[in-house]
Amino acid sequence: MKLIRFGAPGAEKPGVVTEAGMFDVSAFGEDFGEQFLATDGLNRLAAWWAQNEKNCPSVPAGTRLGSPITRPSKIICIGLNYADHAKETGAAIPQEPIVFFKSTTALVGPNDDLIIPRNSVKTDWEVELAVVIGKKTSYVEEKDALEYIAGYALHNDYSEREFQLERGGQWVKGKSNDTFAPLGPWLVTKEEIKDLDNLRLWLTLNGKTMQDGTTANLIFKIPFLVSYLSQFMTLLPGDVISTGTPAGVGLGMKPNVYVKAGDVIELGIDGLGTSKQTAVAFK
Amino acid sequence: MKLIRFGAPGAEKPGVVTEAGMFDVSAFGEDFGEQFLATDGLNRLAAWWAQNEKNCPSVPAGTRLGSPITRPSKIICIGLNYADHAKETGAAIPQEPIVFFKSTTALVGPNDDLIIPRNSVKTDWEVELAVVIGKKTSYVEEKDALEYIAGYALHNDYSEREFQLERGGQWVKGKSNDTFAPLGPWLVTKEEIKDLDNLRLWLTLNGKTMQDGTTANLIFKIPFLVSYLSQFMTLLPGDVISTGTPAGVGLGMKPNVYVKAGDVIELGIDGLGTSKQTAVAFK
Repeated sequence: MKLIRFGAPGAEKPGVVTEAGMFDVSAFGEDFGEQFLATDGLNRLAAWWAQNEKNCPSVPAGTRLGSPITRPSKIICIGLNYADHAKETGAAIPQEPIVFFKSTTALVGPNDDLIIPRNSVKTDWEVELAVVIGKKTSYVEEKDALEYIAGYALHNDYSEREFQLERGGQWVKGKSNDTFAPLGPWLVTKEEIKDLDNLRLWLTLNGKTMQDGTTANLIFKIPFLVSYLSQFMTLLPGDVISTGTPAGVGLGMKPNVYVKAGDVIELGIDGLGTSKQTAVAFK
Repeated sequence: MKLIRFGAPGAEKPGVVTEAGMFDVSAFGEDFGEQFLATDGLNRLAAWWAQNEKNCPSVPAGTRLGSPITRPSKIICIGLNYADHAKETGAAIPQEPIVFFKSTTALVGPNDDLIIPRNSVKTDWEVELAVVIGKKTSYVEEKDALEYIAGYALHNDYSEREFQLERGGQWVKGKSNDTFAPLGPWLVTKEEIKDLDNLRLWLTLNGKTMQDGTTANLIFKIPFLVSYLSQFMTLLPGDVISTGTPAGVGLGMKPNVYVKAGDVIELGIDGLGTSKQTAVAFK
């Protein structure tokens, strides 16, 4: 299944996407978030959909999409998880996953505007494959980790490089501004993604390709990441793990290239759809 | 007012503490969290309490307390915010606040057991004054910051030093295990704390004083911290900002001293009450 949430910000309704288009599943009676996933919602929704598909209103093309899941307990990100990206930023290949959080207030819909923060001159992009956790877990073994995944989504891990790297301390400062986590268009349930380790991911800036990578080059693979993280914190249904970005970020260019108001950023991952953000100045 | 949440884990009820004891305010009909605070809950509760105090059942002494607020959107911590603590860890005095997150799954009641994580040999304590945000804000000025604070609580920012400092990357890995954020006993509303910059905070390990500091020594004061953080992320009602710890952590001892199963950790801050955790091994 491909799940969406559509409508005005803060008032999104749940929907399902098929080859025939987008459909409103508000009649199912639940939003897509922690509680839905924790109560076997994906299977319950699939069963409900099989019975009720014909009665679900279609959602007009062009309707705004929100994040395909409600605000999670956490957005966990993995740093420098593609060797080419580590190299372009001048960092060593990590011996263990580098872990940081984004504020969940950064979460927005896939095509919402990117607001360049006040005083920002180094806002940068990072196309990433995001994992959405399906079941609560801690200390899960790598061989069992996939069982705890609900699905996957496209994520742009926007990053303010000055805030992240030049303002002292930890990276969270450069990862957490509003609109810095456009997620979606879809939450794609895991059975739809046949070859997790061979997905192309790409990003363009004003039509020019900046990132063009493949999950084949992930240093730490997804089952390992889920297991690893679960040693340090309990993962809850709906939690997002953004698995890192390949080469081609603005910080890696010589000279650096950063987002300006009016820029258009488009990105996509095989099977997970595409998204598009227009950068606007903070008002 | 002093707010509590009491009862079994996951089924806590709201309560109020006065000089006469603890009282059940379940009849008010709301739990203490983001929604309560966002809708002027403190003032509404105070008005309700004035009318209904006589009808509120008392809560027996010894009843388990939970965190005085429900799970927040984020727990933000400030690192190295007391000069004596920065010195004992061998770190420089920060030029700007060092910011990191704890997983909100670490949140527990003030007197719940501390579970030493699997494979941990360096679990450490940090008595801290935690700020609880009362109103949504971003880009708030320092002079207006107090307006966005609901109140204060005692927090023990437990930290696994190997996970934090020796496993690569960012600190969040050593801050996020379950039970690493005992909060409370109370959420003390801000008007009760007359001298925020002159509160004693202390911690004992098995009865021996390890930390004994004062908020007079905070490098970055609370209004500044709220304003500063709000430049990098939107703060939501219920969000917790833990403002740093004074000298006396286990990492600062020569030789280092870390928590072992059976250890008893007690801590307190003037006006914010005391808490007590017993360390247990992971099972």
